[in-house]
Amino acid sequence: MTFGAKLAAAAARHGSWLCLGLDPELDRLPAVLRGEADPIARFCHEIIAATADVVCAFKPNSGFFEAQGIAGMQRLADVIAMVPAAVPVILDAKRGDIGSTAEAYARAAFDVLGADAVTLSPYLGGDALAPFLAWRDRGCFILCRTSNPGSAEVQQLRLEDGRPLYLEIARRAAYEWNAAGNVGLVVGATFPDEAAAVRALCPALPLLVPGVGAQGGDLAAAVRATRDAAGGGALINASRSILYASSGADFAEAARREALRLRAAIAAA
Amino acid sequence: MTFGAKLAAAAARHGSWLCLGLDPELDRLPAVLRGEADPIARFCHEIIAATADVVCAFKPNSGFFEAQGIAGMQRLADVIAMVPAAVPVILDAKRGDIGSTAEAYARAAFDVLGADAVTLSPYLGGDALAPFLAWRDRGCFILCRTSNPGSAEVQQLRLEDGRPLYLEIARRAAYEWNAAGNVGLVVGATFPDEAAAVRALCPALPLLVPGVGAQGGDLAAAVRATRDAAGGGALINASRSILYASSGADFAEAARREALRLRAAIAAA
Repeated sequence: MTFGAKLAAAAARHGSWLCLGLDPELDRLPAVLRGEADPIARFCHEIIAATADVVCAFKPNSGFFEAQGIAGMQRLADVIAMVPAAVPVILDAKRGDIGSTAEAYARAAFDVLGADAVTLSPYLGGDALAPFLAWRDRGCFILCRTSNPGSAEVQQLRLEDGRPLYLEIARRAAYEWNAAGNVGLVVGATFPDEAAAVRALCPALPLLVPGVGAQGGDLAAAVRATRDAAGGGALINASRSILYASSGADFAEAARREALRLRAAIAAA
Repeated sequence: MTFGAKLAAAAARHGSWLCLGLDPELDRLPAVLRGEADPIARFCHEIIAATADVVCAFKPNSGFFEAQGIAGMQRLADVIAMVPAAVPVILDAKRGDIGSTAEAYARAAFDVLGADAVTLSPYLGGDALAPFLAWRDRGCFILCRTSNPGSAEVQQLRLEDGRPLYLEIARRAAYEWNAAGNVGLVVGATFPDEAAAVRALCPALPLLVPGVGAQGGDLAAAVRATRDAAGGGALINASRSILYASSGADFAEAARREALRLRAAIAAA
């Protein structure tokens, strides 16, 4: 089963285009977990159990796990394994390297960690993406127009013909790098006009849309800018606003309530 | 001691601008190591011991270690710890993420793994680089014109004023992102004309130059293109041509011989 088919099935079954980012930080965990042997693993387990039927995908960010020390990679693998098999996992790693190193990173993401999809940087060009794209049953979300305040600095640079760099990346992703049909793009909710331009150029690509919630992107505007003709195809990601919806013992129920609220808001938009 | 000072001291002490890339692959290790409990760790230990006084830096690539499975991160930390304290370690990770995630990656590279410098992707813009650059005693090598065959596809895109994207990245790196004086650039030996254009624009930045050896870049041309006015400042990286100079029991001595040969060839150029 390809990533695209697994994603579509989970989105249909759960009536949801909400993607939950798993970005656990030790000092933000609910106090009730402090006595646990592995509070981060326990936190992720509770959050996943409380929300797995409300989301279309989970998106753990490798950086948060790497920063936890050497044990972080084992914990990342454990957390990915906690996700029900029918719900896709997008490893947010923003990798990008060349030749045999790219092959090594692809093995790490898809084989060692068992992710269904990964996020990638386009700066090195298509030949550096190829070793990831060769895993035809996995998905590759290429950074296009990211949600950070300074993303325009490079991504909005104007090319000779006046178009911005991010649209040239989108064009190549959709029409040159997507031979296996497993390419998606990352477009931030914080820039709905640019996201809409990407969707207009790439009507059929899945778009991963971070930036609602803690980063302040307008959810309804983001959904309208990024959904496809069938009303889906845009994975609206929220992380901290769900993970830390409550700092009390009810953190998992609070996360579920916030996830349900966001699922409904996405559907209503 | 800053990364720049540590690098300059090692280069002067060893009379060398050779950087040795540590990209260990299990199926390329000498047969003599097959009986070892941890052949990769043993291989790296022997290579480092045989070459530490011939190089200006070591550059382990995170991807090769991540692909080794969960134990890979522990092994990467162990390998970094094997390097003599006075020789700088550049973690080749090509990271790039935003805000709190970038902070997490910086902690992972500089604190968890203990690297002196890291390689970074510029696609997300300066605000995504800032959490790394804030570690003022560490170095940040930003991808500029990489050594892979397809690097022109994105990096050579022409901007409105006719300049290629990679030179705009070089300009921002040198004149906007380098407030703390800890920025360097990655420029491939496989494109000496482009590397020379970067050096002309950025006379004082350290340049990390992969692509000689197995990738086929002309060493003398690469050195002439990237050295600074004092004849240094360009870390000429070789990996496989040194690591796998011999597949026999003499692999460490053969690696040393090849490192000595390259050190002399760099000095002669």
